[in-house]
Amino acid sequence: MSEENRVWRLRKRPVGQIADDVLSFEKEPIPEPGEGECLVRLNYLSLDPTNRIWMSDMDQYMPPVALDDPMRGVICGTVVKSNTDAFQAGDVVSGLGQWADYQIGSPATLNAMGSTGPLPVMDAFGMFAVVGPTAYFGLLDVGKAKEGETVVVSGGAGAVGSVVGQIAKIKGCRVTGTAGSDEKCAWIKDELGFDEAINYKTADLPAALKAACPDGIDVYFDNVGGAMLDACLKQMNLHGRVVACGLISQYNATEPVPGPYNYPMIVMQRLRVEGFVVLDYASRYPEAIGALAGWMAEGKIRYRTDVVDGLENALAAVRTLTTGENTGKLMVRVEDV
Amino acid sequence: MSEENRVWRLRKRPVGQIADDVLSFEKEPIPEPGEGECLVRLNYLSLDPTNRIWMSDMDQYMPPVALDDPMRGVICGTVVKSNTDAFQAGDVVSGLGQWADYQIGSPATLNAMGSTGPLPVMDAFGMFAVVGPTAYFGLLDVGKAKEGETVVVSGGAGAVGSVVGQIAKIKGCRVTGTAGSDEKCAWIKDELGFDEAINYKTADLPAALKAACPDGIDVYFDNVGGAMLDACLKQMNLHGRVVACGLISQYNATEPVPGPYNYPMIVMQRLRVEGFVVLDYASRYPEAIGALAGWMAEGKIRYRTDVVDGLENALAAVRTLTTGENTGKLMVRVEDV
Repeated sequence: MSEENRVWRLRKRPVGQIADDVLSFEKEPIPEPGEGECLVRLNYLSLDPTNRIWMSDMDQYMPPVALDDPMRGVICGTVVKSNTDAFQAGDVVSGLGQWADYQIGSPATLNAMGSTGPLPVMDAFGMFAVVGPTAYFGLLDVGKAKEGETVVVSGGAGAVGSVVGQIAKIKGCRVTGTAGSDEKCAWIKDELGFDEAINYKTADLPAALKAACPDGIDVYFDNVGGAMLDACLKQMNLHGRVVACGLISQYNATEPVPGPYNYPMIVMQRLRVEGFVVLDYASRYPEAIGALAGWMAEGKIRYRTDVVDGLENALAAVRTLTTGENTGKLMVRVEDV
Repeated sequence: MSEENRVWRLRKRPVGQIADDVLSFEKEPIPEPGEGECLVRLNYLSLDPTNRIWMSDMDQYMPPVALDDPMRGVICGTVVKSNTDAFQAGDVVSGLGQWADYQIGSPATLNAMGSTGPLPVMDAFGMFAVVGPTAYFGLLDVGKAKEGETVVVSGGAGAVGSVVGQIAKIKGCRVTGTAGSDEKCAWIKDELGFDEAINYKTADLPAALKAACPDGIDVYFDNVGGAMLDACLKQMNLHGRVVACGLISQYNATEPVPGPYNYPMIVMQRLRVEGFVVLDYASRYPEAIGALAGWMAEGKIRYRTDVVDGLENALAAVRTLTTGENTGKLMVRVEDV
């Protein structure tokens, strides 16, 4: 890593897919941490569907990234200089940061990773920073999935969806995942143990869902919105739950997107549709991480990490989240730790 | 009342507004109750938006009324002959029945009204059979409205909406109601004590909601769906609740109706949208009735009963629920008790 800093800055709000001129990759001086802050060198940058939200000015759960500011991301890095008692040089930390080689952090934005046990830091970061807690709290706390129930998860081969399905299997649910290729479907069914997998690009969704879920759907963990949400609503059981976690099918939309045509099913079947952002569960992360680490050690949760080397490739990589090219947890590796 | 029976039978599924040939009004013999049943003479027929649902074959929370069957309705009647220990001749009963002068009932479908205290039976039936419990459980159990929160209720001058708003005021909420005329708005604001009223037919909804709810919306009690739902979603506060009670704006639709364009707000603001049918609360009716009767005795809950005389006028009357001509609880009076 050079003595110069490299920073991705947001220059425009994206319209549709993220164009080349939405972000610029700048060479800048390394910043100096103030009192109570630390300087962090980037090891891994998590790329997540929510990055597309933060770039836009759509209604969202945090302020959007301001134009010309460094792009926001969930990062794992190493403290190189510390003006806070919370961290020492050499500490490996994770939290909300920037798409930048060097960045200022503080105890307000970062947490020490601590020991990751038998797991490589990259894998622990990929599973525990966002993905695992999202799957865990979304499925169990919001979705209240119970033994014997039928769970459907969209984006089933994605980072969150693949973990949702495996936790649901651990809890004794029948699980169907949807994904965008036959390879992804084979992975979640044959390797991860989902009961059924539906290729949403080639299937007749309502018919395929009906066949995969003969007893209806109790919990739909929604990562995508759109036609998939509509098809699931139609087949929800009485008092079913929809975990509204993401709407990736419409983040690139350039026209207003209608809500689900089957919205009346919410009244008729007394469904609970509940929005969910994992940040609300920050204080309970240890519970999720403890459970996930145990299941991973027992081989009950498997995962794929989709690693792109080089911060300069972050923009090209983040696009793959909406094209379906990505499988599992997408991240940029800058320097292994 | 004659010795002949008059029965409204469903002949066609309505398309759009309920046309004359959707129901036929027949003269028939008075039925004979079997073992465990009773014969009931109709006093009052409650007309409710859900009647339009039951006539259709849309997805719904009970089986639709079968073609050629008597139309289903919530009724209040007097037992004239009983083959069940549960009722005696002369008992006044209410529950699920038919649009018919005489009808067969049983303890499975009817409950004794018991003493209505100082209230006329008609008013007690109007408030306690459906309306009051719907408002009470919807607002407090599903919506979890709390002191100091902002509540918006659509159909605010309707039977349920007018009670929702008054309960919300009793609980210390700021309340805005929407209604379809200036007269209705004046009634709910000046007489019922709503803080604000919006005429949805003439107002710029988003602007009017923003002005009426400067601190955002915590609970939206939705009786109508459509544009109103969309406008409210846009202004919901973090962890707000939408009580999905009704969608009257779209029951007459002849084309698929898109869901709310602001559906993504459910994720971003972590909203809970929960469907609600009061039948699920049958075992807790006494709690609601006790509270409502107390508030009514104290003058804290006022109501309007919109009475249409004559069973022959039921079809014309039920249409007014979707045209906005009706205010308060709509019912047909056949014979006072």
